[in-house]
Amino acid sequence: MSEPLRLGIAGLGTVGIGVVKIVQSMPEMLAERTGRTIEITAVSARSRDKDRGADLSGYAWEDDPVALAKRDDIDVFVELMGGDEGPAKNAVEAAIAAGKDVVTANKALLAVHGQALAEAAEAAGLRLRFEAAVAGGIPVIKALTEGLAGNRIKRVMGVMNGTCNYILTRMQDAGLDYQTVFSEAEALGYLEADPTLDVGGIDAGHKLAILASIAFGTQVDFPAMQIEGIERVSIEDIELAAEMGYRVKLLGVAQMTGRGLETRMSPCLVPMASPLGQLEGATNMVVLEGDSVGQIVIRGAGAGEGPTASAVMSDIADIARGFRLPTFGAPASALTRARAATSTAPAPFYLRMALADKPGSLAKIATVLGNAGISIDRMRQLSHTDPSAPVVIVTHKTPRQALDEAIAAMDGTGVLTAAPVALRIEEV
Amino acid sequence: MSEPLRLGIAGLGTVGIGVVKIVQSMPEMLAERTGRTIEITAVSARSRDKDRGADLSGYAWEDDPVALAKRDDIDVFVELMGGDEGPAKNAVEAAIAAGKDVVTANKALLAVHGQALAEAAEAAGLRLRFEAAVAGGIPVIKALTEGLAGNRIKRVMGVMNGTCNYILTRMQDAGLDYQTVFSEAEALGYLEADPTLDVGGIDAGHKLAILASIAFGTQVDFPAMQIEGIERVSIEDIELAAEMGYRVKLLGVAQMTGRGLETRMSPCLVPMASPLGQLEGATNMVVLEGDSVGQIVIRGAGAGEGPTASAVMSDIADIARGFRLPTFGAPASALTRARAATSTAPAPFYLRMALADKPGSLAKIATVLGNAGISIDRMRQLSHTDPSAPVVIVTHKTPRQALDEAIAAMDGTGVLTAAPVALRIEEV
Repeated sequence: MSEPLRLGIAGLGTVGIGVVKIVQSMPEMLAERTGRTIEITAVSARSRDKDRGADLSGYAWEDDPVALAKRDDIDVFVELMGGDEGPAKNAVEAAIAAGKDVVTANKALLAVHGQALAEAAEAAGLRLRFEAAVAGGIPVIKALTEGLAGNRIKRVMGVMNGTCNYILTRMQDAGLDYQTVFSEAEALGYLEADPTLDVGGIDAGHKLAILASIAFGTQVDFPAMQIEGIERVSIEDIELAAEMGYRVKLLGVAQMTGRGLETRMSPCLVPMASPLGQLEGATNMVVLEGDSVGQIVIRGAGAGEGPTASAVMSDIADIARGFRLPTFGAPASALTRARAATSTAPAPFYLRMALADKPGSLAKIATVLGNAGISIDRMRQLSHTDPSAPVVIVTHKTPRQALDEAIAAMDGTGVLTAAPVALRIEEV
Repeated sequence: MSEPLRLGIAGLGTVGIGVVKIVQSMPEMLAERTGRTIEITAVSARSRDKDRGADLSGYAWEDDPVALAKRDDIDVFVELMGGDEGPAKNAVEAAIAAGKDVVTANKALLAVHGQALAEAAEAAGLRLRFEAAVAGGIPVIKALTEGLAGNRIKRVMGVMNGTCNYILTRMQDAGLDYQTVFSEAEALGYLEADPTLDVGGIDAGHKLAILASIAFGTQVDFPAMQIEGIERVSIEDIELAAEMGYRVKLLGVAQMTGRGLETRMSPCLVPMASPLGQLEGATNMVVLEGDSVGQIVIRGAGAGEGPTASAVMSDIADIARGFRLPTFGAPASALTRARAATSTAPAPFYLRMALADKPGSLAKIATVLGNAGISIDRMRQLSHTDPSAPVVIVTHKTPRQALDEAIAAMDGTGVLTAAPVALRIEEV
């Protein structure tokens, strides 16, 4: 058996402690599977005194994660602090400069600085691994980078923020409005310190940006993504969608089109009977589509101590086994800068409007849609007591731009009593 | 860039041709992803003259797969012939003896001879890889062996024979009986030459035996598995199960219990709303449960040219990248021989009986069940025109043995007019 693989772990929150527990609890099994003993040499966190429910007395302590990253007695720097700047970035850069392999769960760091970090690591012959950064326990980085290595990837989709899916599912099940469920989720501690990271779609967007880079051999480009959060999803839309056989999901979609790389994260309608439509609670789901393999759907826990630690351990085991592959599946130096494309592929849309309750209102809206070349698949005018009449339309496939232009034109008719809601219906 | 990786492909059916097409169609992408050019040097199949829809003129031809396996100009022997004895076994053994890495899609070969082949390959420092042998395009071997390397595996389940799932789904959807749908499937060419391999649960059993070996660090032991096929699943049972919220699936389950390793392949009832219950048509699904990761569910195409070739290419890419790990995830020499256990864990069961239509029949059955300590969760007596009354019972959790003893005791009451049908209800 080879020399032990020595870990330095920075960040002792739930995930860090989860990794400590796995390493401590199954040493023989890990050694048998990887051919090496896996040891923790040193750890670092903000507060040394806190009781974390694991025995850390056998490990050296560093107050400074950068100092940990540079220690001579570690082989792999395990970054579990989070954040796209500051200590996490400094420590990962220091680890690479000191010749250490790096395992991280930090999606924000990778989405923002992934290209530069990958170039630095690969130039130094080091590994930078991040299975835990995307969809928690789901081994999706491995599936895409290795399992589907013989495919041209066509499309990647995913529900990758458990908190958002919890909120949307709970709204649906209990018939509660967004603000009520948001407050519940906050009270339960489900939200990030800055909740916009969750409900604004940013956390899920970071994950999608990473997947898109691997899928399409392009440099990770988070700023190019079109992002819309779930803050404006109403219980009315959830219930109307359900009546028409759909669920509302915060869905990320990445696909290469003739015009460039399209990456978007937004609330979409998906068929209730599809795997994505049936995904409930905080669970994550990723859909990978390749030209040979067809569609692969993977479901699992997207967060939490055990699942995320499992993903971190997968990277550690791969390093112990001696696996080497480029950070994003192809050499960082070979990744192209994708031209970012907004979505032009026609899709059906769900469109909810409130119309002035007077003769001819609906005719005016229908005329606008007709003039824009948008045909109507289904329409419902709902009974109402308000002075304005709620109308829901499901369009046939239309480019988003045509719909946006039609919505702008509707404004000129004077029959809208509120801004329309338009949600894409994704074919899954 | 390193030297090219040279493949010798034995077997040019749909999967073999699928691999040829991938290698021919994306050479730059494969080279970028793996760091090596991947080339085909030589091929072998039964008939040289057949038009296979791919240009093979650039490759050396061998009539004999053993001769192909020994060629000096190949690095990897790709076995896509099938069969657990004969040419496939001889050629794989010859390849290992000649110092070649091996990639195979042959579940039967691995289920029967996997331990011996793994020992031979590992003793010679060679790789024996088989992603395509289990669940087609689903990268489940990789997920289990690498993605979940930091987990103690609790349970592995799967619907892994697409033909059986097609038959069961079609029976359900069209209300047709088994024999009618079997004949349809045969006419459509969905069945193996020996259909027992499919409908008898043997093909799916081979796959489960391989997964169990990896999951529990045990020697692959196909003969120890309890196997029951779908031949006796009736449309009555499918329809009655549906009325109670269940679907009938040919489900493989492997779990380590205090009494040993339990592996069984049998028609089971699963909740309609579960991922397994919602699996339709020829699609496969595998469920992996680990102590840290929780439950991972993966769905994808279980067969076909593209999906299976994608899995073969995943193994080839790993070899090109230089990955090395033991055949079954831990060294073959360290795998233990598991004690095979029959299922003793209590489960709910679906029990359909035909009772003589006379007073007291049901009371006698209920008494037998009560005496066996089996309590009834739900019961329905169905309206009928026959002289015998169909009765369906869903039991509370009970050991299978208690149920079998109760069924034997029912026989003595003289009220059964046909043998009862008992199907396990699996909690998923």
